Amino acid sequence: MAEITLTFPDGAKKSFEEGVKPIEVAASIAKSLAKKSVSAKVNGAYVGMNDAITASGDFELITKSDEEGLKLLNHSASHLLAQAMRRLPKFANVHFGVGPAIENGFYYDTDNGAGNQVSVEDFAEIEAMMKKIVKEDLPILSHEISREEALETFKDDPYKVELINDLPADEKISVAVQGEHVELDRGGLVPSTGWIKHFKLVSVAGSYWRGNSDNNVMQRVYGTAWWTAEDLEADLTRRAEMKERDHRNIGRDLDLFFTSQKVGSGLPVWLPNGATIRRQVERYIVDKELANDYLHVYTPVLSNLNMYKTSGHWDHYREDMFPPMDMGDGEFLELRPMNCPSHISVYQHKPRSYRDLPLRIAELGMMHRYEKSGALTGLSRVREMTLNDGHTFVAPDQLEEEFKSILKMTMGVYKDFDITDYRFRLSYRDPENTAKYFDDDEMWEKSQAQLKRAMDDMGLDYFEAPGEAAFYGPKLDIQTKTALGGEETLSTIQLDFLLPERFDLTYVGEDGQDNHRPVMLHRGIVGTMERFTAYLIEIYKGAFPTWLAPLQVQIIPVNAEAHGPYAKKIQKELAEAGLRANVDTRSAKMGYLIRDAQTKKTPYTLVLGDQEADNGTVTVRRYGEQETTSMAAADFKQMVLDDVARYSRPDEEA
Amino acid sequence: MAEITLTFPDGAKKSFEEGVKPIEVAASIAKSLAKKSVSAKVNGAYVGMNDAITASGDFELITKSDEEGLKLLNHSASHLLAQAMRRLPKFANVHFGVGPAIENGFYYDTDNGAGNQVSVEDFAEIEAMMKKIVKEDLPILSHEISREEALETFKDDPYKVELINDLPADEKISVAVQGEHVELDRGGLVPSTGWIKHFKLVSVAGSYWRGNSDNNVMQRVYGTAWWTAEDLEADLTRRAEMKERDHRNIGRDLDLFFTSQKVGSGLPVWLPNGATIRRQVERYIVDKELANDYLHVYTPVLSNLNMYKTSGHWDHYREDMFPPMDMGDGEFLELRPMNCPSHISVYQHKPRSYRDLPLRIAELGMMHRYEKSGALTGLSRVREMTLNDGHTFVAPDQLEEEFKSILKMTMGVYKDFDITDYRFRLSYRDPENTAKYFDDDEMWEKSQAQLKRAMDDMGLDYFEAPGEAAFYGPKLDIQTKTALGGEETLSTIQLDFLLPERFDLTYVGEDGQDNHRPVMLHRGIVGTMERFTAYLIEIYKGAFPTWLAPLQVQIIPVNAEAHGPYAKKIQKELAEAGLRANVDTRSAKMGYLIRDAQTKKTPYTLVLGDQEADNGTVTVRRYGEQETTSMAAADFKQMVLDDVARYSRPDEEA
Repeated sequence: MAEITLTFPDGAKKSFEEGVKPIEVAASIAKSLAKKSVSAKVNGAYVGMNDAITASGDFELITKSDEEGLKLLNHSASHLLAQAMRRLPKFANVHFGVGPAIENGFYYDTDNGAGNQVSVEDFAEIEAMMKKIVKEDLPILSHEISREEALETFKDDPYKVELINDLPADEKISVAVQGEHVELDRGGLVPSTGWIKHFKLVSVAGSYWRGNSDNNVMQRVYGTAWWTAEDLEADLTRRAEMKERDHRNIGRDLDLFFTSQKVGSGLPVWLPNGATIRRQVERYIVDKELANDYLHVYTPVLSNLNMYKTSGHWDHYREDMFPPMDMGDGEFLELRPMNCPSHISVYQHKPRSYRDLPLRIAELGMMHRYEKSGALTGLSRVREMTLNDGHTFVAPDQLEEEFKSILKMTMGVYKDFDITDYRFRLSYRDPENTAKYFDDDEMWEKSQAQLKRAMDDMGLDYFEAPGEAAFYGPKLDIQTKTALGGEETLSTIQLDFLLPERFDLTYVGEDGQDNHRPVMLHRGIVGTMERFTAYLIEIYKGAFPTWLAPLQVQIIPVNAEAHGPYAKKIQKELAEAGLRANVDTRSAKMGYLIRDAQTKKTPYTLVLGDQEADNGTVTVRRYGEQETTSMAAADFKQMVLDDVARYSRPDEEA
Repeated sequence: MAEITLTFPDGAKKSFEEGVKPIEVAASIAKSLAKKSVSAKVNGAYVGMNDAITASGDFELITKSDEEGLKLLNHSASHLLAQAMRRLPKFANVHFGVGPAIENGFYYDTDNGAGNQVSVEDFAEIEAMMKKIVKEDLPILSHEISREEALETFKDDPYKVELINDLPADEKISVAVQGEHVELDRGGLVPSTGWIKHFKLVSVAGSYWRGNSDNNVMQRVYGTAWWTAEDLEADLTRRAEMKERDHRNIGRDLDLFFTSQKVGSGLPVWLPNGATIRRQVERYIVDKELANDYLHVYTPVLSNLNMYKTSGHWDHYREDMFPPMDMGDGEFLELRPMNCPSHISVYQHKPRSYRDLPLRIAELGMMHRYEKSGALTGLSRVREMTLNDGHTFVAPDQLEEEFKSILKMTMGVYKDFDITDYRFRLSYRDPENTAKYFDDDEMWEKSQAQLKRAMDDMGLDYFEAPGEAAFYGPKLDIQTKTALGGEETLSTIQLDFLLPERFDLTYVGEDGQDNHRPVMLHRGIVGTMERFTAYLIEIYKGAFPTWLAPLQVQIIPVNAEAHGPYAKKIQKELAEAGLRANVDTRSAKMGYLIRDAQTKKTPYTLVLGDQEADNGTVTVRRYGEQETTSMAAADFKQMVLDDVARYSRPDEEA
């Protein structure tokens, strides 16, 4: 038999007989290594632990401690899911699409015919069958087959046939076999089904075959698999917590918004409750900016495409833009992807002098960005968004002061919204790859140093992230934790030396010359209304502070007939003071109505009966508390007004 | 010679020799009639007073007292203008397009070559030449010519040649001749140039040849002609008044907004001053609606095109819609032309019961409508607009009550804006042409009667306009006068029985059945922000009431150094009370600064010097008044707050 030579990651070489299995190679190094090795790679291609190695080359073992190992476990779990479904009479004829590992687990796309779709009610039965197959500890082996064999093997699986037919003619086709079950697969699997001990199916959702809305909707079954029971437990706890905070779930439960294919992908509809929160946020931030000498404008969401040719968006950002509209008279209109060119048009509307600077232009600017339909999520990934946008035009020597004052205002806003879990990131250009950025070394050096100095002056902690800058300048990003454990940029202050060049912006300096070039600061304080509201929903878990709550006071008369008039009177007094109060007139038991108000996370619930009506008092229960308090109606009103005022006033000092 | 018979409008017949002239016919009736007759019509076609009548038929004289007579005078004045320009050396080679009478006068499209265009500076010279030709009293005669002759006659006039070549082969070609000047013309002219005594050229503007932006831009010279000096004088006064009120002029002078080809046709940019007015209007109307139990939402400006196929807009309204955008995954997105389908999606989001009705959905809904670029005007004709839109879904028996309550609210809003010059129009379907409307005779009868009854119940005057209804139902239009003397619909309440059918809207009735059909009321109270603001600018002539004024208080320190700190202190106190105040720190003479504040129509101007600073007082001048008043600073603040509060509070009774 021929010999082959394997080269290990550390450079060591070792010879084996051709056909040696990775499990034997691992055992030749250490028994323990053989035990914890999940799969191997030869020249970068997966070879199963029990499959034969047929050529010399680079050799690598993937173990349970590698991140990739967990991915292979999840990939293997998707095959286990498919095999288990096929074994169940109900799913004997199920067709499968694709079944990959994903960031948080795995999924498999399934099609069991209309009217007989898999649902969460089936999960227990499927999981039981999966466990049975795990006990059988079936070896998982891979091998190549011809295109003809593949088409024959999967002849009853129309989606697999489509995948096979779409493969290039010269592409090799592999299958993975575990017992009676065959998968079209490129490898990267655990050695046997017995390895997949700790798993759980978590959800099922409709999904277009190959992500194309012209195709069938398949049932995508999601699951998660781990090496230990503890890891699985921790993951399920995290998922439960995520679900509880997930803005899509809270959004549905509290009637805040909805999305629908009928209306359009990535185009959420804000229901009255969600719209109330958004309106409060919008008025708050506009008033805050007006108090900080911003000039608010309204600019069109459509612009002549030429503006984005001048700005460079059309060259560098086109794939995130909507298709231009031919107006038939030589004009092409474009849904704007950014507001900067619009605000530049305001700057350019008049000759500017140094006395006008800093010139601060702000807007609740609606923008449209093309996101793939598969990436769209609730309010957090959308195609239409309204950004709390602002552009400050400054003389170069005003840059640092203006940066500081924007940051100070931003931190004041965070305080008002009770946002505390954030950190500052200074995003620089990548020193290894300066070609990706606006070409002006001196500008980069100077402005990155300015950013850093400003942060140091303010005594703020930060971390530096080379390679995270925008094309045209460095920026400060404020990073917050999301409910899903990730990190997301909530606010940005960005230095821009490029657009003033491209649009040839000038101002008359103290020297009387109209050839001075301003610098632009792009800034979003609360970001888009969509993403910010999603974030607020998650940090508050739907229990909004009083000034934001869609309904602030729920009034429940003990007896609708006897106490309705008093309830109505209290409601009217609150409404006249600008508060959002409602009388619950449903003929249900009081206990139910009180629980319902708590479920809706209404800040204040009033129960009004004989005693209250007689004494002009109210009995108040604060959301989340068990105790009730009795107080004069006027005192209650003042208490709620004070509660609202704490957050809704622009911070005088900012 | 042959005889012909003319039939007069009263049916009388009279015979004349063939070739008789209308002037002779008129004289045969009365000398005075001959004198005041401008032109004649035989069988509906114009025959000049001195041209020969060659056939029997219906005969009609057009006199100076007829509206049509004035039109012919203006038409003739356009020829006079062309003749005069040609006689001037500067315009010897001018080319002419078309020169019709229009609603308010006449125009002629001229092309004198780039760099040598006609401008208002040329008007005096042209008018002088026109007067000279009037004195010459040249007879104006018409006759037919062959196509060849026509092409020969106008061989140096490329626009006329294009017009001749575009005429159908069988169309007769006529010319009108006055002295050396020949016009391609179908007739309808005064007998001689001496008749055109009272005229004036009023303006010149660029205009695409034949309204097509692919063509040359021509200079359109506008003029006006009248029978008497008094009429001309009155017209010129009206035009000056119009110009003074024109929202485009005020918009420019007060920095309210601008439009630019660079940004895009029909896409105005609201500058900070205009944006402040709009924000006040938006907050006012939203608060008003919230106080009237409307549920405010935000819905996307883009929707799946299918929504407009279902609604019928795609079939009936397509030419006013923007081009759909192909998203590449089977979805076509459309910029919405109307908000109704969006609000229907909110209705449909949940099962509805009779207890939910009336359900009032409102929004500041942005829409896009395709208007020809030639029709776009400032804020009043635009392609992107935000409508104060609302849709009420009612049970059929709630229709009348809901209609009344909407109308009551609307009238309250008018009162707050001081809008008094309006009248009510009940717009019915055209009884002569019922095929144009939603086919349900009983619905039309019933709902038109309901509208009428509701108006009668409320004791309101109205006029009825058959043929002005929408396709799907009758409506109430509130008609206001515009600065240009026209009439425009400011608000509408529209009954709609069709969309609930098309979208299959239902609600559960008291009988427990989910098969009841609601009726929709479409209503706009202040209409679009664009058109309403244009209207407000015109009725206020830019002198906005305090609650709307971009700047409410202009503070002028007598001496910037000495009194600046006191001025700043007063400004801060006003700003903290939510008022818009500014300190004018320019180093200009006080008289100039005061005049400037008046020019900008700022409601209050404060002049602060030693005396004011020492006593804590302010010297106040109200816009438009000469007198100043001195008062305590705190009293002034309260006075302005009271002034603002008069209008900015939702009317409790409405």
